[in-house]
Amino acid sequence: MKVLVTTIPFGNMNSQPLDLLDENHIEYVINPLNRKLQPGELAELITDFDAIIAGTEEIGQEVFDRGKNLRFISRVGIGLDSVDLSAAKRNKVKVSYTPDAPAPAVAELAIGLMLSLARSITKSNTDFLNGKWERYFGCRLSQINIGIIGGGRIGRRVINHLIGFGSKNIFINDINDNLQGFGDHVTVCSKEHIYANSDIISLHVPLTNKTYNMITKDQLRLMKESAYIINTSRGGIINEDDLFNALEDGIIGGAAIDTYEQEPYFGKLSYCDNCINTAHMGSMTVDCRSSMEIEATQEVIRFFRGESLLSEVPPSEYSAQTLFGVSR
Amino acid sequence: MKVLVTTIPFGNMNSQPLDLLDENHIEYVINPLNRKLQPGELAELITDFDAIIAGTEEIGQEVFDRGKNLRFISRVGIGLDSVDLSAAKRNKVKVSYTPDAPAPAVAELAIGLMLSLARSITKSNTDFLNGKWERYFGCRLSQINIGIIGGGRIGRRVINHLIGFGSKNIFINDINDNLQGFGDHVTVCSKEHIYANSDIISLHVPLTNKTYNMITKDQLRLMKESAYIINTSRGGIINEDDLFNALEDGIIGGAAIDTYEQEPYFGKLSYCDNCINTAHMGSMTVDCRSSMEIEATQEVIRFFRGESLLSEVPPSEYSAQTLFGVSR
Repeated sequence: MKVLVTTIPFGNMNSQPLDLLDENHIEYVINPLNRKLQPGELAELITDFDAIIAGTEEIGQEVFDRGKNLRFISRVGIGLDSVDLSAAKRNKVKVSYTPDAPAPAVAELAIGLMLSLARSITKSNTDFLNGKWERYFGCRLSQINIGIIGGGRIGRRVINHLIGFGSKNIFINDINDNLQGFGDHVTVCSKEHIYANSDIISLHVPLTNKTYNMITKDQLRLMKESAYIINTSRGGIINEDDLFNALEDGIIGGAAIDTYEQEPYFGKLSYCDNCINTAHMGSMTVDCRSSMEIEATQEVIRFFRGESLLSEVPPSEYSAQTLFGVSR
Repeated sequence: MKVLVTTIPFGNMNSQPLDLLDENHIEYVINPLNRKLQPGELAELITDFDAIIAGTEEIGQEVFDRGKNLRFISRVGIGLDSVDLSAAKRNKVKVSYTPDAPAPAVAELAIGLMLSLARSITKSNTDFLNGKWERYFGCRLSQINIGIIGGGRIGRRVINHLIGFGSKNIFINDINDNLQGFGDHVTVCSKEHIYANSDIISLHVPLTNKTYNMITKDQLRLMKESAYIINTSRGGIINEDDLFNALEDGIIGGAAIDTYEQEPYFGKLSYCDNCINTAHMGSMTVDCRSSMEIEATQEVIRFFRGESLLSEVPPSEYSAQTLFGVSR
């Protein structure tokens, strides 16, 4: 039983996932390139591995063709846009994920980015690097309209944090209609209403064929000139070229971006002075990352033991996930 | 009746304070230098003004000597370290302030700085400017020990926000013992306990002779190597040279500083890669800054009308405030 661990870092802050593999006599190799694998590289590496503990690298037909022993993919995280689920199904490769573990860390980063934007924290910090002292006006989260697109595990946590800050005008939109229990301060409404009326918009949707390029110049043009947009979900949901132009032309006020269509990202948003950039660190807290790695490893052990899986990707994700062919 | 407005900006985001002055036929001049006045400059400017709507510039004996008509100082904000209260009293100049208005904005900035430190937001953003992609591990606020020094209007708000993030280990120290009602997750303890056991320390005390140089190399050495310290209160409470050395030598993990002993600040902390710097923006939200300016202006109007003042500096501040001679 051999596992290829492609996600990195792995077992870094907490060695428990490595200990679990050792205790269960599972042979493993950790991503020898120590970076996100590019298309084709995983197909080269897969050889006779039985399972992958996977990051966000692309896992398509080529991997299934070359990985003759591959029977199981355990995704460290929630996003499934990188896995060709149809191809996995055809090739009888089961897929599990860790949908709950990253949520608290991502939600907290989203709030951190909101406060950084609302109070010009990174902007002022960069001023100091340039020998400049300027006091910027900001706003409190309770005084503005905040739009959340995606009311799942992460979006709901963001809303709960906002309620703690006294936010009274929160808009929520989700593909599902069953959005209840948020109380008086949260209004279910259309994406268009969110675009037109929000001071801050935060995205918490998966990347699918329905959300790829969800926000392009047309949607950015609907937003307030002062609007801030935050993406801690997946690159590709906001069109990066259109976002860059909107930021440069003052169509919107600013952005905070944690996820990019190609990662690592070295593109032009990096140098936009009204864009905060972070390196896909949404889930990167010690506690959440450890939970994700441990849960993904335990699922591999269950698979090898023939036990029932705890977090196999449900059928609904297979029908929703038609992105793999769309964006690539 | 003539008022000199030294604080800047003033009436910028909300013109109501200017309207109030106009409606009440009060002549006013706004700080012609458009920056914080240096010692001596206010004495030059004060001439025949009856009152000052004051920022954080120094108001000492020289101002009272030269300001023959000066009878009232209305401080926009809570800090009184810049006003020689004893000299004001001797010269029969009354002093009011706006102690409540800034608190919500300062508390929210403190949380924003905590999240920026805990999740390396500014650090990662600066990486992008340098063409570097690195994913940093962080922590969630619920998973660490957080020490709050100063349990007044701002410190209490910070604690309430932290409870909203699920923080379970909050330490609080205050000069007063009447710290009640925080619930199970907050422990009253000594400053030394906070220094030794906190992952993040946030200061919410006034600058007085008891807090000037409260944190020097001796206190920094007590802290964890990974500790972050946040100062949104006043410069001078942390010794800046000692903080710089501690950050450079890895004595502590990082800092976020909004207030400096000399402002504007262009010193060496600006270039420390483990120090987030912001330009004294704690109170700078549109809502709080407007409230501060409006309240300070209304107090001037009350004074000129001979009405009783609503927020005159209480006698306790006169006895506590012996800093003016200490730090200057």
